[in-house]
Amino acid sequence: MLTRIDHVGIACRDLEETIAFYSAAFGLTVACRETNEEQGVREAMLHLPGTGLPGTGQGAEGAGRGTGVLMGASYIQLLEPARPDSPVGKFLARRGEGIHHVGYGVTDITSALTAIGSRGIRLIDERPRHGSMGASIAFLHPADVGGVLTELVQAPRP
Amino acid sequence: MLTRIDHVGIACRDLEETIAFYSAAFGLTVACRETNEEQGVREAMLHLPGTGLPGTGQGAEGAGRGTGVLMGASYIQLLEPARPDSPVGKFLARRGEGIHHVGYGVTDITSALTAIGSRGIRLIDERPRHGSMGASIAFLHPADVGGVLTELVQAPRP
Repeated sequence: MLTRIDHVGIACRDLEETIAFYSAAFGLTVACRETNEEQGVREAMLHLPGTGLPGTGQGAEGAGRGTGVLMGASYIQLLEPARPDSPVGKFLARRGEGIHHVGYGVTDITSALTAIGSRGIRLIDERPRHGSMGASIAFLHPADVGGVLTELVQAPRP
Repeated sequence: MLTRIDHVGIACRDLEETIAFYSAAFGLTVACRETNEEQGVREAMLHLPGTGLPGTGQGAEGAGRGTGVLMGASYIQLLEPARPDSPVGKFLARRGEGIHHVGYGVTDITSALTAIGSRGIRLIDERPRHGSMGASIAFLHPADVGGVLTELVQAPRP
């Protein structure tokens, strides 16, 4: 059901500083920046150039996020809270900067949520919602996944 | 320099229970089990079937860990401490179960370490050491990488 690692989400206090760090230290570049008002987060997706179509951030079949099979693009997602009472803001206050969640590719997010929910794992999102770069996403409750905030990601159709 | 996400490392209290959970909940299977006495950890690599050669855990060119370019295999690495005073044991005592580190693929780990060290990032491993499945690995200090325990992974030669 989980096909690949779509991204790791990393909470940071200053998005621009952290982008500059990842660029200087590791040679990564920004594929996309977005602000999600509902989640109270500013984010940047850094493309890992050995995934998807190198240098374009695109998957094998031209989807912005990769296709979820074999050659889908992977990202480091940097997350800066837009307000202190947002989920990422609370995470930073409690645990400091660091890995916030992991996002796995799935082929069909609706059927994945049904299957996972039927196994007794609590769903933070009962239905898929809009994620970055046009993906459909949903989070699972970390208390039911061994302390790991787990996100499902279905790539947009090409 | 970083090419892809090789794995996410997840600290757990009971390796067998956590393997059973990931298998039942997400359909993943174990590609490899190892015990690293030096690090005081028992571990299992769960292959993400949309990466590498599906179902085999192998990369496009037949390397056990993937080649680091395009079609390298990705894993969830489950980590159970073999003793409480090990790094993973201390992590569990301090933070509980959850994401412990992220491992990124690199093509040449020695030159990557030289470049990263020259940028003032402290290296936990000055030289590559043996990682799981025949890879060469090295950790960077999380305090210099925004709170993220960061591992470099060079796949073994096919």
